[in-house]
Amino acid sequence: MFRTAELQRKLPKGDYHQQIPQLRQELLMMQMELREADFPVIVVFAGVDGAGKSETVNKLHEWMDSRWLVARAFGELSDEERDRPEYWRFWRELPPKGRIALFLSSWYSVPILDHVYGRVGLAEFDERLARIKSFEKTLADDGALILKFWMHLSKDAQKERLRKLEKNPLLHWQISKRDWRHWELYDQFVAAAERTIMKTSTGLAPWKIVEGYDARYRSISVAIAIRDAIRFRLEEAKTQAAGAAVHLPEPFPSESGLPPVTILSRLDMDKSLSKEDYTAGLKRYQSQLNQLQRAARERRISTILVFEGWDAAGKGGSIRRITTALDARDYQVIQIAAPTDEEAAHNYLWRFWRHLPRAGRVTIFDRSWYGRVLVERIEGFAGTREWQRAYAEINDFEAQLVESGIVLVKFWLHITPDEQLQRFKEREQIAYKAWKLTDEDWRNRERWADYELAVNDLVERTSTHQAPWSLIEANDKRHARVEVLRTLCERLETALAGQPKPPK
Amino acid sequence: MFRTAELQRKLPKGDYHQQIPQLRQELLMMQMELREADFPVIVVFAGVDGAGKSETVNKLHEWMDSRWLVARAFGELSDEERDRPEYWRFWRELPPKGRIALFLSSWYSVPILDHVYGRVGLAEFDERLARIKSFEKTLADDGALILKFWMHLSKDAQKERLRKLEKNPLLHWQISKRDWRHWELYDQFVAAAERTIMKTSTGLAPWKIVEGYDARYRSISVAIAIRDAIRFRLEEAKTQAAGAAVHLPEPFPSESGLPPVTILSRLDMDKSLSKEDYTAGLKRYQSQLNQLQRAARERRISTILVFEGWDAAGKGGSIRRITTALDARDYQVIQIAAPTDEEAAHNYLWRFWRHLPRAGRVTIFDRSWYGRVLVERIEGFAGTREWQRAYAEINDFEAQLVESGIVLVKFWLHITPDEQLQRFKEREQIAYKAWKLTDEDWRNRERWADYELAVNDLVERTSTHQAPWSLIEANDKRHARVEVLRTLCERLETALAGQPKPPK
Repeated sequence: MFRTAELQRKLPKGDYHQQIPQLRQELLMMQMELREADFPVIVVFAGVDGAGKSETVNKLHEWMDSRWLVARAFGELSDEERDRPEYWRFWRELPPKGRIALFLSSWYSVPILDHVYGRVGLAEFDERLARIKSFEKTLADDGALILKFWMHLSKDAQKERLRKLEKNPLLHWQISKRDWRHWELYDQFVAAAERTIMKTSTGLAPWKIVEGYDARYRSISVAIAIRDAIRFRLEEAKTQAAGAAVHLPEPFPSESGLPPVTILSRLDMDKSLSKEDYTAGLKRYQSQLNQLQRAARERRISTILVFEGWDAAGKGGSIRRITTALDARDYQVIQIAAPTDEEAAHNYLWRFWRHLPRAGRVTIFDRSWYGRVLVERIEGFAGTREWQRAYAEINDFEAQLVESGIVLVKFWLHITPDEQLQRFKEREQIAYKAWKLTDEDWRNRERWADYELAVNDLVERTSTHQAPWSLIEANDKRHARVEVLRTLCERLETALAGQPKPPK
Repeated sequence: MFRTAELQRKLPKGDYHQQIPQLRQELLMMQMELREADFPVIVVFAGVDGAGKSETVNKLHEWMDSRWLVARAFGELSDEERDRPEYWRFWRELPPKGRIALFLSSWYSVPILDHVYGRVGLAEFDERLARIKSFEKTLADDGALILKFWMHLSKDAQKERLRKLEKNPLLHWQISKRDWRHWELYDQFVAAAERTIMKTSTGLAPWKIVEGYDARYRSISVAIAIRDAIRFRLEEAKTQAAGAAVHLPEPFPSESGLPPVTILSRLDMDKSLSKEDYTAGLKRYQSQLNQLQRAARERRISTILVFEGWDAAGKGGSIRRITTALDARDYQVIQIAAPTDEEAAHNYLWRFWRHLPRAGRVTIFDRSWYGRVLVERIEGFAGTREWQRAYAEINDFEAQLVESGIVLVKFWLHITPDEQLQRFKEREQIAYKAWKLTDEDWRNRERWADYELAVNDLVERTSTHQAPWSLIEANDKRHARVEVLRTLCERLETALAGQPKPPK
């Protein structure tokens, strides 16, 4: 979920200073209009220590008119607060209509820390997240605009940040033992964060993950997202006043007007494998896979493989290298193309549910439910609300798979546009491959940039601890095939190690 | 929550047979239209054993075209099902677009029974309800029409039903030891049911509670509710096709065209108290209240009283009989009239949150958050979606109060229209009371029937185990005042008995 926020995105100083004057003016204008509006704006900040929450809030205060802006944070409970239900303190501090409140800490802080420190188990943590969800729903249903920013830093970047602050004689007082203890709990913290975002990122109160690595990048990202979301809502209010009837939640602007840096652009596309290494790797991992699947079958552990990727990225070839190693009774390959009549008459997830493997078997999906947030999103077959809500639906679906003990492995096979062009041309020329190339492939190619953003969103929203995406550099087919096999063996091995043998 | 379904509503045989032919025709026509429609209909039945679930489903099969109707039930897991995630069996059985599926048992059955039998604690039960909610949301967001009927019987009525079946030589095989064991667990079952309905009755998949006492009443209620909900959705689809853009969840028809029988109509309005008994009762309970509140103060137990009721029902008088018994430092009375500017600029619940008492104190609300589902509903100050969603918001708010240890006591003071008229006239004539009577009072009076239905809904949706409504027969002021005091003392006593003394 956070890998897309570990790309070390930066905004050069020049670009930054060039953008500021206009951005400030737009923010001020927007605030003036907001003052007359019929809704409050609630901005929640959360995330990794050192990722720049306070700095960003300070910047926003600098850029905006602070008379109509308040910052709030919650520390130890006061006597007054201790005497009342937990949420009393939050209700007190809600902004009235026309104002913006920036919450530096919020209803998220205590539940997350309690869980990270082990004071609260998973079930109670979920209960608290459910409470948060209905709290935010109550406010949003009534018109409040709720924006939530998760400021992220990688573990290494956080360490670097803490060290830097410690060394700075003016700032080292900011760093306490508590900060280092938090850093040691980084992995637990990120797991809790992932669960929080999955459970509380709703259409009415979405989270936006912001990379906190570069101060300029993060401040501008947040400011632009706030500006756009408020503008969108103000516009919407005008349309409504002019006669349209129904309030719609606004989409969260996904790239904030900054030049997009996607996770795919950070893959090392030069990775390759010599013929010898390929043959050796294939042999090694296929025989390992064969044994692992026998063991999995015996222990009734099922596997689901998802293959997604660009046209001509080599999905079919990779799948064949897997199935070769398996017993034909153990697997099925499901090609996902246009739905059948019967499938079209059901919810889009129905066709995937029906193909779930029995205990101990393998289902390989050649394309999958991710079509909803890829081709259906981009071609407009699914409406904005439909594909936006699909992330939560997919996470929920996959959580059910994983909780029932299924090993879920998801591959994105990545190639560069140049490599794809070459493969297309090759297909045109080789008779027995020509059928594989359609007009649609050429059309999809034209929308490469849209797809790349969609893939970035997909990884951000659905690469979870339980069901991570494996991004495979596939310009070199040999590297890709071995990498797929290696990953699959690794995941199966982990699953088998974690599961006791079944009773005879 | 279920008290409104224990009114022994009946439909006379004559009325029943008169309604059937037309109803059947309407159902068939509706089904024909539905076959071409773009959504499936999922009807879930749950409730108390013996409340007529199967009988109702059989009747629906008799009345409708069973080619486009399927009934589903889930028993023990099959091998196939055991091998896959829990929800696989439900996904398999979902109806395609244009069809109706009646689920006699469903995704609710196992979670509820597991909880009632103590195999699953509250936190895990809630987790499972959350899973149900997101399952239903996924289907409903995609267009499925989901209707859920909770068939209810009182504990006595269930016993009677089981006995009757046992005595019937043709039917006694239906009754097993298991049924009697369930009956013994009636209270746990109803508590689980209440939680289920509170947590899963959403705008997109609402529950309707149906009184199962009379076979004719319940079959017709369910059939009419199904007919109306599908018709509404079909109409909506036409409007959308004609250009309107957005899908709205339909309201659940609240009385199904049957003559309304409300819970208020079943109160014994002749209850009264002699002057002597009144004086004695007042003395007794006021002194008891005084002591109880001292103890509550010491143990830091707060109390919130809600007074709702008809105009001139005697709320003020009852409140004064309470405050007389309390130390002035311990309580505040909050009159809820038009909101202040500041209050109007916040969510409607904000004004109530801000007046929550500190530990050990009492807040008395003279009218309350229930205005949302009473006057605001009836006068149209709140839109349909707003007041419908308010039940869940209110339940959530009250759950937070109760969980934080607050004693919440809610009174509805009921008088008959005649009694109100007499009191209004009296007020007109007595100079020092005349100011209390406004034109609005006369206007409200004209909408008595609407209010009565709104009160019935309010009791059905918000009278919970944790925060029950006390309906007070108030035609006789003396009876009402003593009854209010008595109830309050009882609730405080229970709360004090359940709480340990705080550490010094």
